[in-house]
Amino acid sequence: MSSGFPERECQGCVRYIEIEKPVLGNNTADAQRLEQALTRELVREGGNKGVMVPWHLLKNLPSFLRRWDYKARAVLFKDRKSWRLVDIVPPNLTDAGLSESGLGPCLAESGPARPVLGAAIDLGTTRVVIQLLDLESGKTLGEIGFDNPQVVIAPDVLARIHHSHKTGGLEQLQRLLVDGVNDNLNKLCRSKGCALDDIYLVIGAGNTAMTHLFLGIEAFEIIREPYIPCVNIPDTLKAIEVGLEINGHGLLFLFPNIGSYFGGDLIAGILFADLDKKQAPCLMVDVGTNAEIVVGSRDWLMACAGAAGPALEGGVSKMGMTAGPGVIDTVMIDPLSRKVEIHTIEEKPPVGICGSGMIDLAAALFLSGMIDIRGKFSRQACGNRLKEIEEILSFVLVDRAHSGTGQDICLSQVDLNSLTSSKAAMYTILEVIVKNTAGLEFEDLETFYVAGTFGSFINPDSAISIGMLPDIDRSRFKVLGNSSLGGAAMLLRDPSAFDRIMEIRQSITYIELNVNQEFMNMFSGAKFYPHTDRARFPSVPLL
Amino acid sequence: MSSGFPERECQGCVRYIEIEKPVLGNNTADAQRLEQALTRELVREGGNKGVMVPWHLLKNLPSFLRRWDYKARAVLFKDRKSWRLVDIVPPNLTDAGLSESGLGPCLAESGPARPVLGAAIDLGTTRVVIQLLDLESGKTLGEIGFDNPQVVIAPDVLARIHHSHKTGGLEQLQRLLVDGVNDNLNKLCRSKGCALDDIYLVIGAGNTAMTHLFLGIEAFEIIREPYIPCVNIPDTLKAIEVGLEINGHGLLFLFPNIGSYFGGDLIAGILFADLDKKQAPCLMVDVGTNAEIVVGSRDWLMACAGAAGPALEGGVSKMGMTAGPGVIDTVMIDPLSRKVEIHTIEEKPPVGICGSGMIDLAAALFLSGMIDIRGKFSRQACGNRLKEIEEILSFVLVDRAHSGTGQDICLSQVDLNSLTSSKAAMYTILEVIVKNTAGLEFEDLETFYVAGTFGSFINPDSAISIGMLPDIDRSRFKVLGNSSLGGAAMLLRDPSAFDRIMEIRQSITYIELNVNQEFMNMFSGAKFYPHTDRARFPSVPLL
Repeated sequence: MSSGFPERECQGCVRYIEIEKPVLGNNTADAQRLEQALTRELVREGGNKGVMVPWHLLKNLPSFLRRWDYKARAVLFKDRKSWRLVDIVPPNLTDAGLSESGLGPCLAESGPARPVLGAAIDLGTTRVVIQLLDLESGKTLGEIGFDNPQVVIAPDVLARIHHSHKTGGLEQLQRLLVDGVNDNLNKLCRSKGCALDDIYLVIGAGNTAMTHLFLGIEAFEIIREPYIPCVNIPDTLKAIEVGLEINGHGLLFLFPNIGSYFGGDLIAGILFADLDKKQAPCLMVDVGTNAEIVVGSRDWLMACAGAAGPALEGGVSKMGMTAGPGVIDTVMIDPLSRKVEIHTIEEKPPVGICGSGMIDLAAALFLSGMIDIRGKFSRQACGNRLKEIEEILSFVLVDRAHSGTGQDICLSQVDLNSLTSSKAAMYTILEVIVKNTAGLEFEDLETFYVAGTFGSFINPDSAISIGMLPDIDRSRFKVLGNSSLGGAAMLLRDPSAFDRIMEIRQSITYIELNVNQEFMNMFSGAKFYPHTDRARFPSVPLL
Repeated sequence: MSSGFPERECQGCVRYIEIEKPVLGNNTADAQRLEQALTRELVREGGNKGVMVPWHLLKNLPSFLRRWDYKARAVLFKDRKSWRLVDIVPPNLTDAGLSESGLGPCLAESGPARPVLGAAIDLGTTRVVIQLLDLESGKTLGEIGFDNPQVVIAPDVLARIHHSHKTGGLEQLQRLLVDGVNDNLNKLCRSKGCALDDIYLVIGAGNTAMTHLFLGIEAFEIIREPYIPCVNIPDTLKAIEVGLEINGHGLLFLFPNIGSYFGGDLIAGILFADLDKKQAPCLMVDVGTNAEIVVGSRDWLMACAGAAGPALEGGVSKMGMTAGPGVIDTVMIDPLSRKVEIHTIEEKPPVGICGSGMIDLAAALFLSGMIDIRGKFSRQACGNRLKEIEEILSFVLVDRAHSGTGQDICLSQVDLNSLTSSKAAMYTILEVIVKNTAGLEFEDLETFYVAGTFGSFINPDSAISIGMLPDIDRSRFKVLGNSSLGGAAMLLRDPSAFDRIMEIRQSITYIELNVNQEFMNMFSGAKFYPHTDRARFPSVPLL
């Protein structure tokens, strides 16, 4: 199997194979020889019931094999049933254009040497991010992000699902998203000197609703009691079936979900964080509109999701916005002088504040005594920074003279109350799952992973100061970034991860959050800054 | 599983299933509930790794299941990997049109109650025959036959394969055949009051070349040393992929072959004759341009194919034609008076003679002393029925005054020589495989199956008299009819037959006919009437 072909680093989706040549006395067909070569290649990876050559690859198979001297690279994907042969391409890049004699139309089209690529997609409700990978080297070639085009229908999932229930609504939502993916994939490919046709595998991860809407399948039961998705484990399908304009033989796989409120994005996150391989218990939290939490190790996994409140997501609170040039992402206040310092993205004139900036601001206000332990502005400490706008107290962070909008940039008491609820909800949910459910202390967590784009920007010190995250050693916090995208890319690099995905799905225990009196009592305590039980936050300085 | 639903006779491709209803506390998705119900249904049939719901069935699955109260009929097909879900339809015929409220486009189209049908196809080189079956009852609804439209390109397979190697030739040949199948399927459906859309499964059996041409895959290597097919076991595919206009979800499966000269039609024949289940050895011969022979039992199977010569197929010899009105299918000659009696199809005025008629004629001529043991016309015995046409002796079977063509209907010495070679080749091949290879005597064969349309009309007495078939008890001969079609229909009725097909393919030993000196010696002996070794044909009367 070696014969001068370079060793690959990992056993990825592209395999170099040599096919037994036909002779008189062994009349096995070309396709079955190819299957035998693939089986030899894959047998050590186990669980293989034999790869079948699909019909669409048969058409010119005899010409291909003879032209390539019975050598080829096979593009493979492993799914629930077995390995699947996506396509076969010339044995190495320089062999692609040997000769044009006696070849069928497929081969004639092959033209100059082409790479074998894959695309990982994070199908976010608000934002979609695509990563382009070389399936042979496993290298990331580039990344592109864009606002989910379904936002034109509605910003939130609930309204989109209602829209999908109208005549033509589902098709419209699917079309918007698929068109957006096609456009951006195309841009990304062109910027890297490759083509959509070079993409053989697309792996996406998104929440359960987004997965349904991308596949164009009925999503309405997700939001109606008893909240049943149409599908937990979508079957691998041809990418062209949903309208993706990648290679005509290319496949699409979307991460499976566990239920309506625990999506494939989280499964991808667990995979990316290697939670299912940890010896000591770890925790992963993905902070968005919902706080989605997974805690566990290689022996057990538990998960829950709960509304963390609107204040943590930009665009929902009056002031908050998603990250962009001029958005305030860091706030510092000197506890003695109460002098306010801000930092904006790209250091442009300030135009607003994002979620992580709000957490910074709340922490700075609290640590400088400008808000009290109940989360109310102190008129005395805030002084002339406090204004009453439409009978609501507001803290002027940047006055109109210094803002990029010509308007004051403010945090109102209403915004602050909303943040207080959110941070309290987050802490309570963490407490419920870690302490009440898993029977652990926060100190038992070896690593505390913070996932999601929003999570990447949170300053753990600030989040701990306001009592949103538990007061553990700062070194245990680890930012995962876009773990949904990371998990999807992982499967593109290592197809054996598929079995882990299925095992994670099987083994995870989903905890239905029971908002009972005990929960409400815990929640009430967590609405204080940092908490009514001050002993839980020893590292937060006392005023 | 009972709940008032009528018991079915066999476990066919259509199964009534009940799906667990969703409740709060069990958030399993609809598709996975459906998979569980299918797994419960199929688990006792073994070999099942779990059925997956394909993407195209997900679209309106939630609406369907709720409308049908979580009951359905599942259309299934078993292939190499596992069971495949083709489609789901309403739980019973009368439930199909309950209500139209809140349904997606798929369901709205379902309209009035529809049957679930399958089509079996014998993909013959010369003639194609289609049988329409009700997949639930297993009943045959009708049959239609038509000349293979590829005949316009060339009558023989070799020339068609050469044509397929030209630019656009393969597509043209495929298109001709697929169009012919579509047209005739449509006719058949309309005559039975059903629609193409009611057909969910098409199973075809043909020789290796026809299978390749129907699938539109390169066939050229079949006829070029070392004679390698592109594929032995074609994967199941969507029928629309090759252009079949049946139900959009419908599947197409073509019987696998063993090599370029041992096609799926023969595997279908073995299945149909139950050769793989026999305790005592049996033999099956399919007489066409080639004589294809399988001998064996449940313990072993051997096969060979050899050119039986052109005389046995109508349309090749000058006089011979395929069966049709006015064609002479039976000939009797009184050995004493030498009075000739003929029978024509539909008792129309005679227009020619078919293969089985020629065997009858040769036997009658021999038994009345009008041809000698070397197969030459006796001038004396034939008298004025013998004419010299273009210096070749010809036997006038019907004179122009009594024929339907205005011309004499003759058998020339050239035709007769050709028939002699063919019958000798047939006997020799039978002898090689039964005696020399399997080590049996003809008397050891429990049943001697004669397959193929042509075979159906052969009078065993006549065939034995000329030494074409061995002189065994006439009761052991059994006419199979179109065994290729029969095998395909069998798989539609009983999907578990798939495993038998794969086992037959695995277990069969294909004997390459070695035309060496020994064969030629045997062949020389068999060119006599009935044979040089007269003792082999004790029941043929001595003159």
